[in-house]
Amino acid sequence: MRRILLRIAYDGTSYAGFQFQPGGIETVEGVLNRVLTELTGEEIAVTGGSRTDAGVHALDNVAVFDTASRIPGEKFAYALNERLPDDIKIRASREVPQDFHPRHTACLKTYEYHILSEPFPQPLKRLYTHYTYHSLDTAAMDRAAKYLIGEHDFTSFASIYSQAKSSVRTITEAEVKSCGEEIVIRVQGTGFLYNMVRIIAGTLMEVGRGRKRAEDIPQILAAKDRRTAGPTAPAKGLVLKEYRFLNEKGASDKL
Amino acid sequence: MRRILLRIAYDGTSYAGFQFQPGGIETVEGVLNRVLTELTGEEIAVTGGSRTDAGVHALDNVAVFDTASRIPGEKFAYALNERLPDDIKIRASREVPQDFHPRHTACLKTYEYHILSEPFPQPLKRLYTHYTYHSLDTAAMDRAAKYLIGEHDFTSFASIYSQAKSSVRTITEAEVKSCGEEIVIRVQGTGFLYNMVRIIAGTLMEVGRGRKRAEDIPQILAAKDRRTAGPTAPAKGLVLKEYRFLNEKGASDKL
Repeated sequence: MRRILLRIAYDGTSYAGFQFQPGGIETVEGVLNRVLTELTGEEIAVTGGSRTDAGVHALDNVAVFDTASRIPGEKFAYALNERLPDDIKIRASREVPQDFHPRHTACLKTYEYHILSEPFPQPLKRLYTHYTYHSLDTAAMDRAAKYLIGEHDFTSFASIYSQAKSSVRTITEAEVKSCGEEIVIRVQGTGFLYNMVRIIAGTLMEVGRGRKRAEDIPQILAAKDRRTAGPTAPAKGLVLKEYRFLNEKGASDKL
Repeated sequence: MRRILLRIAYDGTSYAGFQFQPGGIETVEGVLNRVLTELTGEEIAVTGGSRTDAGVHALDNVAVFDTASRIPGEKFAYALNERLPDDIKIRASREVPQDFHPRHTACLKTYEYHILSEPFPQPLKRLYTHYTYHSLDTAAMDRAAKYLIGEHDFTSFASIYSQAKSSVRTITEAEVKSCGEEIVIRVQGTGFLYNMVRIIAGTLMEVGRGRKRAEDIPQILAAKDRRTAGPTAPAKGLVLKEYRFLNEKGASDKL
């Protein structure tokens, strides 16, 4: 048996999230399992990296699976793309060590949250941005984002349904920038709690509208209370941009 | 009665083009007529600027209609956007002279054709770019585009179903550029024949792949024969980017 790593891009619009769900509900994992099973003739179930929510997009999620097939590791991308729907594509595939597990390997994940803040919504951006007619103070949002950098207990920024044992996570980068017509919130970290990036986005938008101050973020973190942060921003603005594994020395590993 | 001008953005994916079609076929014009009739209580039929094909997008198409309603010209955009679906939005509305007709007023239209040329297709760009795994020589495509500038008989670049009396049109700008991961063909002119921009795009892609030379374009124009140009590129890569009216002196008029 060999273990194969996939790098996956998908439009989450039509899926009930990444993680497999029974009962015919369409998920990214469900589609990958079906197509891999068709391709190899083996009963295959992938193990995903980031279990993104319903409606969230990815340019670079990861998954591994084991196979006895003789297809070279790099060729899985081509063989799968022929069978996958247009809204899920494999960007790269390769063989990895038998004991490699994406969720037990140190990594840096980068998420982006895209906001369109204009007088009118844009039809061509409707699936991939969150629209607001409020004008947002990007500089204040960026100042607020900087308070999130470092190791913190992010209980205030996690769904009350989060099942993680610890709410301590490390954010390595956080910034808010104008990119053309869009405002982009970019957050990089070693791991995220359930809904964490969307709650960060919702809270930074409150700062952008002047309903919270950038300087409130340390108190919100300290409160360890979900009710102190802003609302959970809609899924469609969120995209998992990069999933980078770190090697034993903590350096970026081009897996 | 007053005449109102609308500037319209739409995602053409779900529509059988701009122009009204009977029999319940969804078109952009059909949706506008329905929503305007609901809003005003009058039987309204708009007159469009560019009758884009099925699947073609617009950031800035135009339409006019006559109304006895007392809604201020600028307010139609807001009132219509509340009722329109997410994939059609009004960017601006204003009152224009009673005799203003978009198709009988001199204008400059700018179209862009977006191509994604990478090893793998991208799910998040699938609706708004034409994907090709061929690598394209952008410099050669730009050289070819330059031969189209000026007043020419574009018979070779028009659908054989074109019903225009004359095939002479003027292209004022034509260029091909790399924009991030995309190749963008940008063409500006005073008017275009049926399928003309898509046939230009298909022909420039042939040049990009080395199947035609940039220097072949003058002969293709001179042949006045559709068979000498390249194929009609798929609709989804095309977007009407700007529709600018010219005043009597030929200067740009911010209508």
